[in-house]
Amino acid sequence: MLSQTQTIHPVLLCGGSGTRLWPLSRALYPKQVLKLESEEALIIQTARRAQGKCFTAPLVICNEEHRFLISRLLQEADITPSGVVLEAEGRNTAPAAAVAALFALNRAAEREDPLLLLLPSDHAIPDGEAFQSCVSKGVEAAQDGRIVTFGIKASRAETGYGYIEIDAAAACISAPVEVLRFVEKPDEVTAEEFLQGGRHCWNSGIFLCGAKTLLSEMERFAPDVLSAARTAFEQGRQDLDFFRLDAAAYHRSPNISIDHAVMERTERASVLAVDFEWSDIGSWQELWSRSPKDEANNALVGDVIVQATTGSFVYGASKGLTVVSGLEDAVVINTEDVVLVTKRSGASPIKAVLDRLAAEGRSEHLSHASVYRPWGSYKILVHGTQFQVKEVNVNAGAALSLQYHEHRSEHWIVVEGVAEVTRDSDTFELNRSESTFIAPGQVHRLINSGAKALKIIEIQCGDYLGEDDIVRLEDDYGRR
Amino acid sequence: MLSQTQTIHPVLLCGGSGTRLWPLSRALYPKQVLKLESEEALIIQTARRAQGKCFTAPLVICNEEHRFLISRLLQEADITPSGVVLEAEGRNTAPAAAVAALFALNRAAEREDPLLLLLPSDHAIPDGEAFQSCVSKGVEAAQDGRIVTFGIKASRAETGYGYIEIDAAAACISAPVEVLRFVEKPDEVTAEEFLQGGRHCWNSGIFLCGAKTLLSEMERFAPDVLSAARTAFEQGRQDLDFFRLDAAAYHRSPNISIDHAVMERTERASVLAVDFEWSDIGSWQELWSRSPKDEANNALVGDVIVQATTGSFVYGASKGLTVVSGLEDAVVINTEDVVLVTKRSGASPIKAVLDRLAAEGRSEHLSHASVYRPWGSYKILVHGTQFQVKEVNVNAGAALSLQYHEHRSEHWIVVEGVAEVTRDSDTFELNRSESTFIAPGQVHRLINSGAKALKIIEIQCGDYLGEDDIVRLEDDYGRR
Repeated sequence: MLSQTQTIHPVLLCGGSGTRLWPLSRALYPKQVLKLESEEALIIQTARRAQGKCFTAPLVICNEEHRFLISRLLQEADITPSGVVLEAEGRNTAPAAAVAALFALNRAAEREDPLLLLLPSDHAIPDGEAFQSCVSKGVEAAQDGRIVTFGIKASRAETGYGYIEIDAAAACISAPVEVLRFVEKPDEVTAEEFLQGGRHCWNSGIFLCGAKTLLSEMERFAPDVLSAARTAFEQGRQDLDFFRLDAAAYHRSPNISIDHAVMERTERASVLAVDFEWSDIGSWQELWSRSPKDEANNALVGDVIVQATTGSFVYGASKGLTVVSGLEDAVVINTEDVVLVTKRSGASPIKAVLDRLAAEGRSEHLSHASVYRPWGSYKILVHGTQFQVKEVNVNAGAALSLQYHEHRSEHWIVVEGVAEVTRDSDTFELNRSESTFIAPGQVHRLINSGAKALKIIEIQCGDYLGEDDIVRLEDDYGRR
Repeated sequence: MLSQTQTIHPVLLCGGSGTRLWPLSRALYPKQVLKLESEEALIIQTARRAQGKCFTAPLVICNEEHRFLISRLLQEADITPSGVVLEAEGRNTAPAAAVAALFALNRAAEREDPLLLLLPSDHAIPDGEAFQSCVSKGVEAAQDGRIVTFGIKASRAETGYGYIEIDAAAACISAPVEVLRFVEKPDEVTAEEFLQGGRHCWNSGIFLCGAKTLLSEMERFAPDVLSAARTAFEQGRQDLDFFRLDAAAYHRSPNISIDHAVMERTERASVLAVDFEWSDIGSWQELWSRSPKDEANNALVGDVIVQATTGSFVYGASKGLTVVSGLEDAVVINTEDVVLVTKRSGASPIKAVLDRLAAEGRSEHLSHASVYRPWGSYKILVHGTQFQVKEVNVNAGAALSLQYHEHRSEHWIVVEGVAEVTRDSDTFELNRSESTFIAPGQVHRLINSGAKALKIIEIQCGDYLGEDDIVRLEDDYGRR
């Protein structure tokens, strides 16, 4: 574990858009919130990795659309972030890193240069101790004004990652060395050469550096990024537990990574060659290769039956059986609203499918059957022409807005927990198996004031059932 | 069309168990009730094929577990059968044919020998006129005491069908000829020889014969079948609209087809070589080959997106998107509760999967998410530990039993149609968006006395939610 007296400020970079593991991930439910290889979401695994006496609470930088989902995960994991900074739009890692540096400096003593540990929040690093031990080896260099990146020793000829070239002779030492060159994703022949040559590490996207160092190098090599980030930060505003960057200012930053904006240009780039197990879990192939397998080399998750099938990744839905027969190297992902069947290897051009869904005004690229809201989640159980049935889950202590609908009535039946209901001027409690009826135009509110989860079944009837038939009179989450 | 003065008695043989097209078909929802290649179920397509002035109403012989489903389909199609005979257990076509002969003779004048047209109820014959024209060509031979079977001229080297060998010289004439030999499903080389030789037709399983002829040949070649069928018929009993064969007697019949029991032994077998389009739709390969296809040779049904995929059959669920990327010759069947992914060609040993489901006490081999009842159907929308939400569809004019539950309460919300509700001594009407509550122990009944479909959402709460927590006081369908 780390033992330096210097405090490190972990920064969780959560800008991932969640297309590569679709339909497990969705635009509104990105990879970093998936519970892969653990009972905890990747973002929580990442936060835990940077916990200990040398670390401050983490700073989270995420898309505003993920704010409730991510703050709920942090809360459930009992992690209080030092801040949650919201991007209206992802602009890649360079402006996010600049904002993190500004945020840390803003809270630091005048002469202090806070050490930032920039962490992609959707990677797997199973050995937390090895990780912290490596981070500690980079501290001195970072304190000396270097921007230290972490290069993972290649264990196979991987074509899915960027590489960092270093001096072969220096590759095995335990302190950062100079970066010779950043290399984009190679073809298979080149990847094999890299593996044999021993001069190339995988680019993990993890950085350790002083906030002032980062800003000064940005000033020099990416002044437009820094300028946009600074304005977005200075003109940002606190909103409940969140800090909203000024959207217009932030949008003016080039959409660029730290690597391109700074690391490929600065003379202060160092790389620490590390050998802990690491993965960006960026493909079905990668997820399959890391999973436990049966005797036929199949990785099976959930309610799945396979026969005469080999080398496949089959992910069963929370509801429903998945049967695969007679296939090789297949991927079958069964979610409640989408089934994807594809091949394990080879880049899957799923983006074209997502674009088509967006163009058709559908929602499967955006969200799961379960839709997350600040107060909990809901799921449409059945959708008719003039009725709709929802399962509504309200978090302990949470409240929906005080609202009314013009076109629909609602029946609520409590099936788990206790509901506090406001209807017109009445407020009353509903226990399990009790119900109430809300007529169109009737002002109402649903609150879970208990300590346990509340689940109700809501039956809507009306000629128009759109989510936009809602007039909010009061809302705990600042929504209109 | 047929123009003989002789009346033909169509017999719909509905014993199919529905394993080959699982999960589209289920044990309780067999292939003959699927709506394949038409808006109507295969059994209705079959019944329509034998309608006209020469035909009596059809006699239906089906499994007792399918009785409500099949009688509902007939009713919706405005077909009144001459009888619906129930088998407690399928014993293949020989005893069913014997029962059909006994049934027809029982209603016929003393000297009459009714002509039976035995029809498998799950085959596709798109050209009804060609079919009737061929049937008419067999009538004279059947009247002369022949048992006429219909041989389909082979159009490819098919290994999935049985064959009938005939004299090549006689193959093209328009009247039945002698059967030389029945041949079991051949291997590929033999099937190719059959195709080239022109002496072999596919065995369609359709027969035309006098009832007395059939019984006398059974008496000679399969007396144990006839004896069991006769006792089962004589000791059977009328039950509402159904005729129940005596189960114990029927069970004593050998499980044997008409071909093995009679046709391979009798000297009265004739075959009419016909060239109408015919299929038993017995495999995904067959279903795919008969379906309209896109430019990449994919047959796609429902809400499906494919990319870089060829030669595949993709069947989308009624609810939910199916995406297939980068596959060849695949079969993807997405039903509400089961997803099957397999290869298009090659016999799929799905029986092992069904056996496993049965052994594990599951229900996916038996029924769909929608479960059919005499009064309509229901579907479980969500199942919790202490609650359950069902969508309940009640047919026009139908009534659930007068009943109560010991362990659960029920909320009913009408979302389509009008419900007539009995609760204790009250009877009242519920319109759309109205609801009622049934406490445990409270006697209740749900009736759809209107002319339109009734749909309610039922929310059950209780510590025990099993289907067997039901005490029936009165039931229109003779259930206890």
